[in-house]
Amino acid sequence: MKLCVINGDGIGREVVPQAVRVLRRLLPDLQTVDAEAGWDTFRQQGTALPAATLAAARDCGAVLFGAVSSPAYPVAGYRSPIVQLRRELGCHANVRPTLSLPGCGAAGGIDLLIVRENTEDLYVGEEQSDGDTATAIKRITRAASRRVAETAFRLAQDGGRRRVTIVHKANIMPLTDGLFRDAARAVAADYPQIAVDELLVDTAALKLAQAAQGFDVLLAPNLYGDILSDLAAAFGGGLGVAASLNLGAEAAIAEPVHGSAPDIAGRGIANPVASLLSLALLLRHWWARPTLAATLEQAVRRTLGDGIATPDLGGDAGTAAFCDAVLARL
Amino acid sequence: MKLCVINGDGIGREVVPQAVRVLRRLLPDLQTVDAEAGWDTFRQQGTALPAATLAAARDCGAVLFGAVSSPAYPVAGYRSPIVQLRRELGCHANVRPTLSLPGCGAAGGIDLLIVRENTEDLYVGEEQSDGDTATAIKRITRAASRRVAETAFRLAQDGGRRRVTIVHKANIMPLTDGLFRDAARAVAADYPQIAVDELLVDTAALKLAQAAQGFDVLLAPNLYGDILSDLAAAFGGGLGVAASLNLGAEAAIAEPVHGSAPDIAGRGIANPVASLLSLALLLRHWWARPTLAATLEQAVRRTLGDGIATPDLGGDAGTAAFCDAVLARL
Ligand SMILES: CC(C)[C@H](C(=O)O)[C@@H](O)C(=O)O
Ligand SMILES: CC(C)[C@H](C(=O)O)[C@@H](O)C(=O)O
Repeated sequence: MKLCVINGDGIGREVVPQAVRVLRRLLPDLQTVDAEAGWDTFRQQGTALPAATLAAARDCGAVLFGAVSSPAYPVAGYRSPIVQLRRELGCHANVRPTLSLPGCGAAGGIDLLIVRENTEDLYVGEEQSDGDTATAIKRITRAASRRVAETAFRLAQDGGRRRVTIVHKANIMPLTDGLFRDAARAVAADYPQIAVDELLVDTAALKLAQAAQGFDVLLAPNLYGDILSDLAAAFGGGLGVAASLNLGAEAAIAEPVHGSAPDIAGRGIANPVASLLSLALLLRHWWARPTLAATLEQAVRRTLGDGIATPDLGGDAGTAAFCDAVLARL
Repeated sequence: MKLCVINGDGIGREVVPQAVRVLRRLLPDLQTVDAEAGWDTFRQQGTALPAATLAAARDCGAVLFGAVSSPAYPVAGYRSPIVQLRRELGCHANVRPTLSLPGCGAAGGIDLLIVRENTEDLYVGEEQSDGDTATAIKRITRAASRRVAETAFRLAQDGGRRRVTIVHKANIMPLTDGLFRDAARAVAADYPQIAVDELLVDTAALKLAQAAQGFDVLLAPNLYGDILSDLAAAFGGGLGVAASLNLGAEAAIAEPVHGSAPDIAGRGIANPVASLLSLALLLRHWWARPTLAATLEQAVRRTLGDGIATPDLGGDAGTAAFCDAVLARL
């Protein structure tokens, strides 16, 4: 098994190596290939995603992507490496679970999965401006909508889940969001045992905030999925524990949802849980090792349950000490 | 003083007349002009916003718009009457406060104001589709961005507020969201006593969920404002109490954020608080009657504080009984 390891910037350099250390215990034959991406890479090489990194990611198929810093204002030649990587590797679905974990201040009883389309919508990067009027293209295709819906329903079925909620704003965008909704409903017809319903994105945000417990799978276009998954993270213990997997036919990228957190970088206190749980998603959905995935998830859960936590969760464990504790519970 | 009264559909027909009854006590000389809009109107007249309604709204300047039902699937000729009305009347800003009200299960200490651009973004309604690929235009102009930012900073100043947070996703949309952000920052320069900062929309959703108390004014493009204001409503006691004012140079539309709620329509139990507080916004920001606005807000607050509430808030008061209680406290 091969894993392309991209630390990125800031705390990516701390959580990723520690999470990989834990993974090695589960997969003793793991081969890793280190690759570069991010803001420092951009400053050194003029690109945030070097060709060598893309080649290594393609070759390995499985990737762990830490976090990258990005400029607050447009910088000529800079493009978001994670957005590029998702598209280049054909990772059409972004899978983001939110779980009630112990010791995280999370609300109880939450076990939801957001499946976010990962290649189009406003993320196609087609913008124009004359300085006073700017336009961006939101593109939705039936093919990409179908594909991500198929992933959502398949994951729902495999995970013993009962309901998929399609998120859209088709009252305002009947053609684009309507296409997403209709493509998803067509896929739903192939899964008669899974209930399907739909919510406007504004209502979905409200209901998530009122009772995230009421959700099972949420299926959303790219931008709504971006917003709702950060929101859901608030109810599952925050960004320090929010995991994601970018999933495609030829590659998968495990990606903690958090950013590079320059404010705490370099101090060895960043929370590795998001990276660990992202690797568990990779084990389950890419490497088809559900037992190992569950073992890792259980160990993380028991560590947190035993009151061991990094400072973001009110504990005093460092990144390495937390991972030691997870290793001791594997 | 003239008010164009548009009940709309469903519970709009219950909360609006009751709220107007309360307003009459504060403004004994109030003249009202009833006008039609919504789904029933569309079915009867082939348009959801008849020309006569638009003319009445223009003539009055001040409008109370209840709620309308809209079709789940596109219907030929149907366009959202509220979106049309906002644009036709030039109501460039949508002002949505969230407050910790008593008796609403609201988190304590919240007093934030979302100011949402109200005329452009993906709401321009420019979509195309060949059935397999659909595109929508997101349009951001410097003029509209400036205008709504000016409203946000002016309201911040007038309301004794200290900070405006610009919401965008300029890391993905540097030209459109970047233009919004830059136009807002240019306006901020005219208000040196008000702090300005910015947040990505996904982070804003997360932080609102974690600590809505930390926010003062949020300034957002149309769609993000739509999502974030519904989200904020969750922390301020829900949609039953969420008020808004669509504000322009020539007209203002008071609009409860909730929908037509067909599930409870016709039973006389809908919550009139959102309509009452929307009228308070109209009194303060359009009719320049801040004392009357405060009187109305205080009466609503005291009613709720005395444990009188409609069923959505766990009480057993009907719409009319709640308004009687408010009148008794004016
Ligand atoms: C960093 C940014 C490009 C990214 C996104 O918008 O997809 C992030 O917010 C995420 O959710 O992974
Ligand atoms: C009903 C709909 C058109 C409207 C909007 O999206 O603006 C509503 O959600 C709102 O926030 O007032």
